[in-house]
Amino acid sequence: MKRTAKDIEDALGPQAVSYDQDEIERHGHSDWSTSNSKGRPVAIVYPRNTEEVSTIAKICDRYKCPIVPFGAGSSVEGSFSSPYGGICVDFVHMDKIVAFHPDDMDVVVQPGVNWVDLNKSIEESGLFLPLDPSPTAMIGGMVSTNCSGTNAFRYGTMKDWVLNLTVVLADGRVIKTRKRPRKNSAGYNLTSLFVGAEGTLGLVTEITLKLAVVPEDTSVAVVSFPTIGEAAKAATKLIRSGIQLGALEFMDEVQMQVINRHGSEAVRKTAWDECPTLFLKFAGTTEGIKADVAKVKRIVDPFKPGKIFFARNKQEEADLWAARKEALWTMTSIKPDGYAMWSTDVAVPISRLAEIIAQSKEDSGDLGLFASVIGHVGDGNFHQAVMYDPKNTQHKEGVSRCVHNMMNRALEMEGTISGEHAIGIGKKDCLEDELGVDTIGLMKNIKQSFDPAWIMNPGKVFDLPPKSTAKAVDVE
Amino acid sequence: MKRTAKDIEDALGPQAVSYDQDEIERHGHSDWSTSNSKGRPVAIVYPRNTEEVSTIAKICDRYKCPIVPFGAGSSVEGSFSSPYGGICVDFVHMDKIVAFHPDDMDVVVQPGVNWVDLNKSIEESGLFLPLDPSPTAMIGGMVSTNCSGTNAFRYGTMKDWVLNLTVVLADGRVIKTRKRPRKNSAGYNLTSLFVGAEGTLGLVTEITLKLAVVPEDTSVAVVSFPTIGEAAKAATKLIRSGIQLGALEFMDEVQMQVINRHGSEAVRKTAWDECPTLFLKFAGTTEGIKADVAKVKRIVDPFKPGKIFFARNKQEEADLWAARKEALWTMTSIKPDGYAMWSTDVAVPISRLAEIIAQSKEDSGDLGLFASVIGHVGDGNFHQAVMYDPKNTQHKEGVSRCVHNMMNRALEMEGTISGEHAIGIGKKDCLEDELGVDTIGLMKNIKQSFDPAWIMNPGKVFDLPPKSTAKAVDVE
Repeated sequence: MKRTAKDIEDALGPQAVSYDQDEIERHGHSDWSTSNSKGRPVAIVYPRNTEEVSTIAKICDRYKCPIVPFGAGSSVEGSFSSPYGGICVDFVHMDKIVAFHPDDMDVVVQPGVNWVDLNKSIEESGLFLPLDPSPTAMIGGMVSTNCSGTNAFRYGTMKDWVLNLTVVLADGRVIKTRKRPRKNSAGYNLTSLFVGAEGTLGLVTEITLKLAVVPEDTSVAVVSFPTIGEAAKAATKLIRSGIQLGALEFMDEVQMQVINRHGSEAVRKTAWDECPTLFLKFAGTTEGIKADVAKVKRIVDPFKPGKIFFARNKQEEADLWAARKEALWTMTSIKPDGYAMWSTDVAVPISRLAEIIAQSKEDSGDLGLFASVIGHVGDGNFHQAVMYDPKNTQHKEGVSRCVHNMMNRALEMEGTISGEHAIGIGKKDCLEDELGVDTIGLMKNIKQSFDPAWIMNPGKVFDLPPKSTAKAVDVE
Repeated sequence: MKRTAKDIEDALGPQAVSYDQDEIERHGHSDWSTSNSKGRPVAIVYPRNTEEVSTIAKICDRYKCPIVPFGAGSSVEGSFSSPYGGICVDFVHMDKIVAFHPDDMDVVVQPGVNWVDLNKSIEESGLFLPLDPSPTAMIGGMVSTNCSGTNAFRYGTMKDWVLNLTVVLADGRVIKTRKRPRKNSAGYNLTSLFVGAEGTLGLVTEITLKLAVVPEDTSVAVVSFPTIGEAAKAATKLIRSGIQLGALEFMDEVQMQVINRHGSEAVRKTAWDECPTLFLKFAGTTEGIKADVAKVKRIVDPFKPGKIFFARNKQEEADLWAARKEALWTMTSIKPDGYAMWSTDVAVPISRLAEIIAQSKEDSGDLGLFASVIGHVGDGNFHQAVMYDPKNTQHKEGVSRCVHNMMNRALEMEGTISGEHAIGIGKKDCLEDELGVDTIGLMKNIKQSFDPAWIMNPGKVFDLPPKSTAKAVDVE
């Protein structure tokens, strides 16, 4: 592996390779992740373009050395950890907008572009990439995990916004999955295959993204309910009403307590009900939103709502939504020193969401640990975050049991163990329960045919085949 | 191959297999298709469920006999033709709605369900499958071609509405690609891989479809323009305005002449301008549509519009849209006896649409044949239909040259040779020009690993590998 790094240094120059221990540590472990490995890359390499990535892949192929792609480092499932060591490829310098085609409503970017920066830089065109994951996320990681966020209810997930990908394959060849039309039925959909593959099939070096038109106007409403059941029933009515909401989010009573007490100043201005609460985003024309707001009032009324806030101006809109947007940050800010946060997500058919949230809350309540729930109700997707002391074996086992129960429950309800965070190293065991041996077998056939030596991000999504001689370093 | 058919007869009973020559002819050739093969299946088999399809595949695998799936038979690219003979699997009896989950907004269907029938049968729920291909199309074929139609501008294509697929593989094993949540990032996206694979990777026997909420209200407007250029400029402004149109369609002056003279009675009630014309569908709340209509008037005004029709009631809405909906049928009704119609589609980045339409019209004009253009402007996708005498070599060569020019032009503009009709046997040659050898190579790797004997719908999408001993019967 060290020889691989040396060859890369010779090919790209010494500035492109780092052996710095702090750098290696930062790329090998994340406090935000629920899953980490004890393995570390031998070096971090910093390519500047597709050709350099291709050179790196060719050298790694020569020595059959693992290649692990790294974006913003915000994965919570260990997608960028290095259980088999190898070379970590950091895309931080590949942060250019390659071409912006406003008339075609698309943009070509490198993987290191941050999505918030992208939307800022094209703001004047009236176009945007309508996804909404963590503000730190980079397009490359968003592609690799098929990410989404609060806007998925209206705009779908990453796979719906990628028109084509330039990919460096395991042997260093460079391919483009498709050309640039918005609609395509020519040949197999390789684009959607690489989206969500977590870098196990190739390294994505250029992405053409479809863009949406920024709505003329937006607004926000927040409604609390006496129980999760009432909130869920109201949510179903809202979804089926034909009002095209921009987002429909849920926060439980614990999360509402947290923002009341520890939110930012803007958020604490509002005296929130500490009850199960729905956050609604409106998007459309100004006239249309007025009509939608009136309708929402009528729809939620039978479900015994508590306080109802409708934003009366842009400031109120920002302040109300900030409560949702800051939720994770607020939770993290009150985490006791030395504690970790286990945050995971599952998705179920939407009619089962209230039930699985209630059961999961009961389960985590039994642990006596601090736990809260945030849900993308419109998609049947939710996150539970539990704070625990990772040095306390009882805590650790309890949380692990809780998360596994939650995944098993999701599967019983015909749901998935991962709605938007992907599999990484943390959820491999359960993936087979979800999909079965034959379906996983097909996926492995694809992996094997794209990357016969299994050097692309090894140990993610699935374990290496039994015949492999590579040795993983234990999971932390 | 006959032994294969006999074994299937023994396994499923004589009623499941037909050797009738008329049946075989109907399954082997289509007047609607621009591409046909001289090959014919040896028998047509009619399975009733996934298990029977699995039995058929196992028997075909035993003898390495080709399997060709057949849905509504409306492919225009020869997707269901049998250049290598073999067994044709007709899904006509697999026409059941397996499960409807209104609370989850999804439905599980067999491949032989017609999409219009599906939407009628779930009408009361206020939900629908928001695609709009040929009214004859069945869900199975829609999956296999990644179809779309006029609603794609708002709702996307088939791949965006399939949650999971049950697939019978080449060796008869049955897999399910995913479970039933609306959002998923667990493992590779096999669902999107089978969508658009034209039955070359497996036989789809069950489909779970996401459903959309029927909009509260809809309406229609039709606006004519002096030139294609003005129509295209107006279309771009409309797309970027933030009005969420349900559809944005284009018909050229030839097509408008045809509907004026040969349209149905309802369509001929309107005195259409015989000019390039945009058809707009509105969808939303009643109040929202009123505001949208007012906006459209302001937006199109600078582009020298001719007649503008806004539907004032539901009857007018139906009559106006009928002109678009009946376009293909009206064209076919005036086709001289013995003439054929070459109808094909390409898609380009939307800013290039006016240019490619104008060039393609000039090209077909030079032939002296009757040709018209219909376009899904909002997607940069259009269809050109040319009438010709297939016995006239000059006609045939001219049309073929025209279509190839159109595809090459689309590729030069970073477009695709197929926006929604797929590849079949008709466009294989050009697919390599679009994607390049390495990208096609990856697709063939997948094909090879899923179907090592290349018996699933052989000769579609790509040619068989050189080492194959199978012999194709010539293209007609």
